[in-house]
Amino acid sequence: MFTPSGIIALTTDFQSDSFYVAEMKVAAHQIARDAMIVDVTHAIPPQDIQQASWTLLRALEAFPEGTVHVCVVDPGVGTERKILAVIIHGQAVIAPDNGLFDVIASRYHVAAAIELNNEVYFGPRRSRTFHGRDIMAPVAAHLVRGIPLMSLGEAIHRPLVTDQAKAKVFAEREGDEIHGQFVYADSFGNCVTSIFEDDIPEDWDRRQLKVESGLFSVDGIVSTYGEREPGESAALLGSSGQVEWAVVQGSAAQKYGFEAGMAVKIVREKA
Amino acid sequence: MFTPSGIIALTTDFQSDSFYVAEMKVAAHQIARDAMIVDVTHAIPPQDIQQASWTLLRALEAFPEGTVHVCVVDPGVGTERKILAVIIHGQAVIAPDNGLFDVIASRYHVAAAIELNNEVYFGPRRSRTFHGRDIMAPVAAHLVRGIPLMSLGEAIHRPLVTDQAKAKVFAEREGDEIHGQFVYADSFGNCVTSIFEDDIPEDWDRRQLKVESGLFSVDGIVSTYGEREPGESAALLGSSGQVEWAVVQGSAAQKYGFEAGMAVKIVREKA
Amino acid sequence: MFTPSGIIALTTDFQSDSFYVAEMKVAAHQIARDAMIVDVTHAIPPQDIQQASWTLLRALEAFPEGTVHVCVVDPGVGTERKILAVIIHGQAVIAPDNGLFDVIASRYHVAAAIELNNEVYFGPRRSRTFHGRDIMAPVAAHLVRGIPLMSLGEAIHRPLVTDQAKAKVFAEREGDEIHGQFVYADSFGNCVTSIFEDDIPEDWDRRQLKVESGLFSVDGIVSTYGEREPGESAALLGSSGQVEWAVVQGSAAQKYGFEAGMAVKIVREKA
Repeated sequence: MFTPSGIIALTTDFQSDSFYVAEMKVAAHQIARDAMIVDVTHAIPPQDIQQASWTLLRALEAFPEGTVHVCVVDPGVGTERKILAVIIHGQAVIAPDNGLFDVIASRYHVAAAIELNNEVYFGPRRSRTFHGRDIMAPVAAHLVRGIPLMSLGEAIHRPLVTDQAKAKVFAEREGDEIHGQFVYADSFGNCVTSIFEDDIPEDWDRRQLKVESGLFSVDGIVSTYGEREPGESAALLGSSGQVEWAVVQGSAAQKYGFEAGMAVKIVREKA
Repeated sequence: MFTPSGIIALTTDFQSDSFYVAEMKVAAHQIARDAMIVDVTHAIPPQDIQQASWTLLRALEAFPEGTVHVCVVDPGVGTERKILAVIIHGQAVIAPDNGLFDVIASRYHVAAAIELNNEVYFGPRRSRTFHGRDIMAPVAAHLVRGIPLMSLGEAIHRPLVTDQAKAKVFAEREGDEIHGQFVYADSFGNCVTSIFEDDIPEDWDRRQLKVESGLFSVDGIVSTYGEREPGESAALLGSSGQVEWAVVQGSAAQKYGFEAGMAVKIVREKA
Repeated sequence: MFTPSGIIALTTDFQSDSFYVAEMKVAAHQIARDAMIVDVTHAIPPQDIQQASWTLLRALEAFPEGTVHVCVVDPGVGTERKILAVIIHGQAVIAPDNGLFDVIASRYHVAAAIELNNEVYFGPRRSRTFHGRDIMAPVAAHLVRGIPLMSLGEAIHRPLVTDQAKAKVFAEREGDEIHGQFVYADSFGNCVTSIFEDDIPEDWDRRQLKVESGLFSVDGIVSTYGEREPGESAALLGSSGQVEWAVVQGSAAQKYGFEAGMAVKIVREKA
C-alpha cells in the first residue's frame, strides 16, 4: 500500500529562510538520518490553506511513489483540530485536517487515513504552537523508516472532503463553456487555473478557444510562451497540466490583478 | 567534551538565495563529504549582530549535541577582530568575536574557546572579505571530521561576555514586574521577547498577568493562538520557551511597530 | 576530460522558494540518488540572462572539478533555441544557448560542446514550458552517473561566443584608464564590476586609483571594508576577484542606483 522511498517533502507558510524550517528538518533527521528532505516551498502566504491545497496537488504529481509529504499551514495549531496521515496516489501526506486535503482528495483516491494520536511517534519537544516540529516531522521520519501507517493512530472512515469542497476543485462544463477559478500565481506571475488539460474536450480546437476573466480575455490556448511576443498575454497549458494565464516575459498577476478564487472561463467560439 | 554528530548549521545575513551560501557549502563539502549542512536562516538583517545572537540561542536549543554551528554576521571581516570556535551546550559554535556570543554565553556554560589561527585548517581561497567561505566553513568541516578543537588555534581564557552584555540578555524581576526587551520578530510577525518561561514565578497565575510595551498592553498569557480570535492580540509562550506578542492570523510587528531592543514588561495584576 | 564529482549546482530565475526548484531536484534525484544538489541561487531576476551569465562564472570558480551546473534562465523555452552541455574549466554546464555561455566561454577554454538531442536521457515528463525539469535536470543526473558527454547529443564545432559578446565581457585598458561595466549587485548591495584583479597592472599603486561611474567616484582600491568608516563608499577587490563598489554597512546599489550594464572605469591618477 505504501512503501517509503526515503524522501520527505516540506510545504509550509513559514516563508523563505525561516528557522522554523530548520527545526523541522532537524526533528526529522534525528529519527531518519538517511532521508532526503526536499523543500517544496515555504512561501505559501501565511494561513493560506487554499493555495497550500493546490500546491500539495502539484507536489503529489511531481514527487515519486513513496514520498512522505508534510504540509504545515496550521492556523488552528494547539486547538482540537486533528492531524492526519493519508495514503493517496502512492504517497503519504501528513497535515492538519483544516481543508488542506480538499484538492488532493477530490482528485485522487484516498487509500487510507489515520488520525495521528499515538504519542510514541511524536518528538521529544511538546509545544502547543509548533506541531510541525513536534508531531508532523517526527511522524514523517518514522514513516520513512518503515513504521506501518496503522501504528500511528486511529483509522478514519468518513470521507476526507465534502461535496461542496469538491465542487470548488473541479472545473464545470456548461455547453460551450468551462468554468473554473484562479488557484495561485507562480513565481513568474503566471496565473494558474483549476482547469486541467483533460477538462477540455479533445475535439475542441484550442486555437478557437477564448479564455475570459472579468473584463479581460485572451484568444487561443498555445503550447509555449514563444508563440506570443514579449509583453503579450498568452493562455497556455502549463507544466502541471493546468491552464495558465501568462504575460510573456512579464507578470499576469501584476498586469491584471488576478487573485486566487477569481472566476475564469474557457469559451469555445463559433467557427 | 565535543563529539561531532555530522551536522553543520549555517546562520548568516547573506539573505535568501545568495550564492555566498553556496560557496560556503561547497567549501565545507570539499572537506567533509558526508556532513549534513542545514540552513538555520540567511535572513538575518545585514550586520544585525543582536538578532543573530538570539537566533544562535534558538539554534543551539533546536539542534542535537555534536552540531557545528557557523554564524557569519561579520561587518569587521578583514580587520583584526578574532574568529572563535566555542564549545557550549554540547555543540560547537564558530563565529566572529563581535558580540555574536553574548546571548549563548550568558545562558550556557562555555566549556572551551579557541581563537582560530591555525591556517592549516583554513580553506584554499584567501580573500579578505569572505572569511565565512575561506576560514569558518573549512574549519567547521574539519571539526565534523574529528579534528580536535585544540588543534585549531590558541585557547582563550577570558570570559566571552561582559557583565554589561549579560544584563541585556537576562530579564530582570522587580517585585510584581519582569522587565525585558523584544529580540526579534519571526516570519509571521510574532514579536519574541527576552523573557523566558522560567523567568515567570510558578505561583503567578498566567491569566492574571498583563504584558505591556509603550502604550500597548495585552491581558493574560495563553498557551495557543486558538484561545484568541483572528485579529486579536495574544501574549503566549512560543515554541522556543520565550514570551511572544502575537496577533492571531496577523502580524504584531506590523500592527504595533515593535522592534528589537524595545522594552517590554510583564506585570502581575492585583487579584 | 570530465569526471563527475557527484555535485549538481542549480542556478535559475525561479525565485526563492519556488516549487519549480523542488521539481528539478526530484527529477535529478530519481536518476542520481547520491548526487549532492546545491542551490547556487534562484534569485536571478526573471529572464535576466546577463546577470545569470556572470553568476555562472562565479559558480564555475567556486565549485570543484567535476561539478555539473544546470542554469535555467530560459525565456525561449519550447521554441527552437538549443540546449547545450559544455565542458569548461573541468566542469560541465547545461543551459539553453541564449547567451548564458557568453561570460564563461569568453574567459575559459571550451573543451567540448554538445547539443542535447538524445531523448533517451530526457525525463519521463515532456512539457513544452519546463525544460529545466524535463530535460536539463535529468541529463545532469545522467552525467553525474557517468554517462559520457558524447552520448547526450551531437557535438557542436562553432565557437560558443561571438567576438562582440566577448568584447562586452572583458574590461578594456586605454592608457591610464580601465573601462568596464557593473554586472550585478550582491545581496548586500555591493556593485560588482567586470574588472578583475588581473586587469589592473601590477605596478599601479591601488591607493592612487580612482573608480568612476557617471558623476560619482571613489578614491583608492582597498582590501577590506574595515578600511573605511560605516556609511562611506569603498572600492575593493571582492571575494570573486572582481572590483566592487560598496558602501560600508550599507548598500551601494541603493545609494547610487547603479545597475548592471552601466559603465564604470578605473583611472590612474598622476602622482
